[in-house]
Amino acid sequence: MKLTILGCYAATPRTLTNPTSQVLEIKNRLFLIDCGEGTQVQLRKNKIKFSKINHIFISHLHGDHLYGLIGTISTFSLLGRTTDLHVYGPKGIRELILLQLKLTESWTTYQLFFHELESKESEIIFEDQKVIVKTIPLKHRVYTNGFLFQEKPGERKLNVEAVQNYNIHTAYYQKIKNGGNVTLDDGTVIENEKLSFDPIPSMSYAFCSDTVYHEAIIPIIENVDVLYHESTFLQSEAALAEKTLHSTAKEAAAIALKANAKQLILGHYSTRYEGIKPFKNEAETIFPNVLLGDDGVSFQF
Amino acid sequence: MKLTILGCYAATPRTLTNPTSQVLEIKNRLFLIDCGEGTQVQLRKNKIKFSKINHIFISHLHGDHLYGLIGTISTFSLLGRTTDLHVYGPKGIRELILLQLKLTESWTTYQLFFHELESKESEIIFEDQKVIVKTIPLKHRVYTNGFLFQEKPGERKLNVEAVQNYNIHTAYYQKIKNGGNVTLDDGTVIENEKLSFDPIPSMSYAFCSDTVYHEAIIPIIENVDVLYHESTFLQSEAALAEKTLHSTAKEAAAIALKANAKQLILGHYSTRYEGIKPFKNEAETIFPNVLLGDDGVSFQF
Repeated sequence: MKLTILGCYAATPRTLTNPTSQVLEIKNRLFLIDCGEGTQVQLRKNKIKFSKINHIFISHLHGDHLYGLIGTISTFSLLGRTTDLHVYGPKGIRELILLQLKLTESWTTYQLFFHELESKESEIIFEDQKVIVKTIPLKHRVYTNGFLFQEKPGERKLNVEAVQNYNIHTAYYQKIKNGGNVTLDDGTVIENEKLSFDPIPSMSYAFCSDTVYHEAIIPIIENVDVLYHESTFLQSEAALAEKTLHSTAKEAAAIALKANAKQLILGHYSTRYEGIKPFKNEAETIFPNVLLGDDGVSFQF
Repeated sequence: MKLTILGCYAATPRTLTNPTSQVLEIKNRLFLIDCGEGTQVQLRKNKIKFSKINHIFISHLHGDHLYGLIGTISTFSLLGRTTDLHVYGPKGIRELILLQLKLTESWTTYQLFFHELESKESEIIFEDQKVIVKTIPLKHRVYTNGFLFQEKPGERKLNVEAVQNYNIHTAYYQKIKNGGNVTLDDGTVIENEKLSFDPIPSMSYAFCSDTVYHEAIIPIIENVDVLYHESTFLQSEAALAEKTLHSTAKEAAAIALKANAKQLILGHYSTRYEGIKPFKNEAETIFPNVLLGDDGVSFQF
């Protein structure tokens, strides 16, 4: 699993910082999460192939998470894309994009599918053989979802020595990999755990931005491997965070701790601060495993 | 008069090139012309004060001239702007921006005025004491206007020596500056040109992008001081230029020549070419005074 932060600063694109966008590579699938202005250029800078992105998830309809979407969709067309593109986001996103395509007399060279979200409960919005994506309802000034990306558990690994000892026919191997027991000719049942090893643990990633400190998300993201949680402010601006429905670094860490996350990544920093190191320091007073998101940085898990 | 090119490459924003946007400073007014994605960052990079921009002109509703507008408008709000902002552009631009503001539940902290254009004839769309702006109807795949910015002629300069020789009372000075003759007490009429000098020549700038080679614009831009004319292609791609309703460098030069422009600036280069020097070489075979527009370059006239 690899996460590339294209942009993780709040409010507006600036000379050296970009608004929210990131790419998650999981089980060889590439998911684009949020799409602030300039995302297509950040994709180029980070050498991410446009053609490999088939699913775009938009957390909420605020400009710093959204205004790069129409340009990205248009550029995909200019490059002659033919593969379907799926966009997941709050109700209204379809009208917003289609009106722009209509008024600019553009059309896509590929099929564009919108999956509009309006549920206030967590729901599965994407599922294929290897990955499942659920919404994480967040609490912000407008309707907002985070997204939980989970690898599905893989097959169990065959214990080759054991199956040979029991003289089990290869016809049973797939059944064993799927977790099934085997009944021998003499009627003895061999438990699956004697014939196979646990699969490689499946990874999970939770993207939570933008949101005020919101404990209701904890059951949804419990035991997540990697949690990206917004930290627009430091605790010194806690009142402002509450007022604008954003979080502080300390609050992000508290969520990570209570959800038993393995790793916390911070981001969505207000540009009022000179540097981002204080965010890490503050979060580490609560939770040990803190990484600083930053534009153009990739994390491998 | 100062022109700053924020971006002048066709189609899509890339790592090192920006789509169309430029700032014209004329008589201390700052006009933003076109607004491709990333314009607000280019404004910052070129140290142009957001607060000094009160008028934005959009040539046509194609993404590479437009998709930075909503972000620019939003950022002006985030910065707490209170001054009116006027946007001039094709019919539809109002709906396009207002729907985005509505769906993102944003509102501007300032008054936003749209001046929607749909005339196929050149018309005056802005006029104040010192500057006048007219549309230049262009021929492109969608409804498109170029813009002609003209300084109004200033007052004539008083010939101090002459008025003293004729012993003319100061009460007549403003009349003379305005171009009037003076009748002496003995009934003699003194022609204005004996009492004053010509004013500083007023400058003009024509922005023409995007358009196919289109001689109908020549009478509108005749004798213009500075002509920015798109040159998406070189003459070797003349057929493609005609098909996509763009121009070649040679065609841009032909327009400059026939319109008796003093200076030609090229831009809107297709990113298919390795460098832009060949555009200058090609144009100079037709017209002598050619400058290459490029991102971040300023011209003073």
